Amino acid sequence: MNPAPNSEFMRKAIDLATENVRSGSGGPFGAVVVRDGIIVGEGANRVTQQNDPTAHAEVRAIRAACQALGVFSLHGCEIYTSCEPCPMCLGAIYWARIDRIWFGNTSADAARVAFDDAFLYREVALPAARRAIPSSMLMRDQAWESFQLWLDTPNKTPY
Amino acid sequence: MNPAPNSEFMRKAIDLATENVRSGSGGPFGAVVVRDGIIVGEGANRVTQQNDPTAHAEVRAIRAACQALGVFSLHGCEIYTSCEPCPMCLGAIYWARIDRIWFGNTSADAARVAFDDAFLYREVALPAARRAIPSSMLMRDQAWESFQLWLDTPNKTPY
Repeated sequence: MNPAPNSEFMRKAIDLATENVRSGSGGPFGAVVVRDGIIVGEGANRVTQQNDPTAHAEVRAIRAACQALGVFSLHGCEIYTSCEPCPMCLGAIYWARIDRIWFGNTSADAARVAFDDAFLYREVALPAARRAIPSSMLMRDQAWESFQLWLDTPNKTPY
Repeated sequence: MNPAPNSEFMRKAIDLATENVRSGSGGPFGAVVVRDGIIVGEGANRVTQQNDPTAHAEVRAIRAACQALGVFSLHGCEIYTSCEPCPMCLGAIYWARIDRIWFGNTSADAARVAFDDAFLYREVALPAARRAIPSSMLMRDQAWESFQLWLDTPNKTPY
């Protein structure tokens, strides 16, 4: 994979973000997934329009790329996103096995326009007991049953 | 909101996880979103079946609850999940404004059955420059244009 970025793809991600605000479709965020020099998935933020708090630009671009390619791994792909991924989107990028991230605005920039990205990075890094959303373990022994079944299942699709 | 958990809801989340493995639909993970003592959304892991690396149980339960209620905020809701949320799902829970998390298995348990949750927590907490997936800033001045347009737009829907 070419380690040099292609400004055309970042321009596309930014245009998606700008057009999204102009059309009233959602927040100022756009992203494209690129493989072998071709855009294979794109997305803009549609949280409010689609009533889906997970409909961030990167998540939507990843979903679109996986549907287009018929895969659940985007190994060999890069993502260009108009803003540094939030922890949710960074997690999605890891699960998708994307090779490289190019971003425009930073998380601190996002905080300046009143999005929670920087706050979320602080929260995710805290021990669970110190986070703003309370979190408790419950019925761990019973929950292990499903993990044991996973271990005992021979013909599964790992990911 | 009642601070005490309801084991019936965790039982449901675990059953979703177990049934998901048994039916070959995906990984051993299930979750339900609860409001006022009623399940308003549920989900199991469908990453491999749907070619969607973001189709974790919590993400799917949140999407289902938002669709059922016609909202993009789940303030006033709790989530019961058969395993401690990974960083992607924890981010989704924050963006959804969920009030409380109850989990069964821990991230360390997930690592024991070969899922990356604990690794992802370490990665997300690192400075971007030290993460396994390389990440670089590009065209920040141009990217700011979409943020500036967001600031200058009077009739937007914040979230």
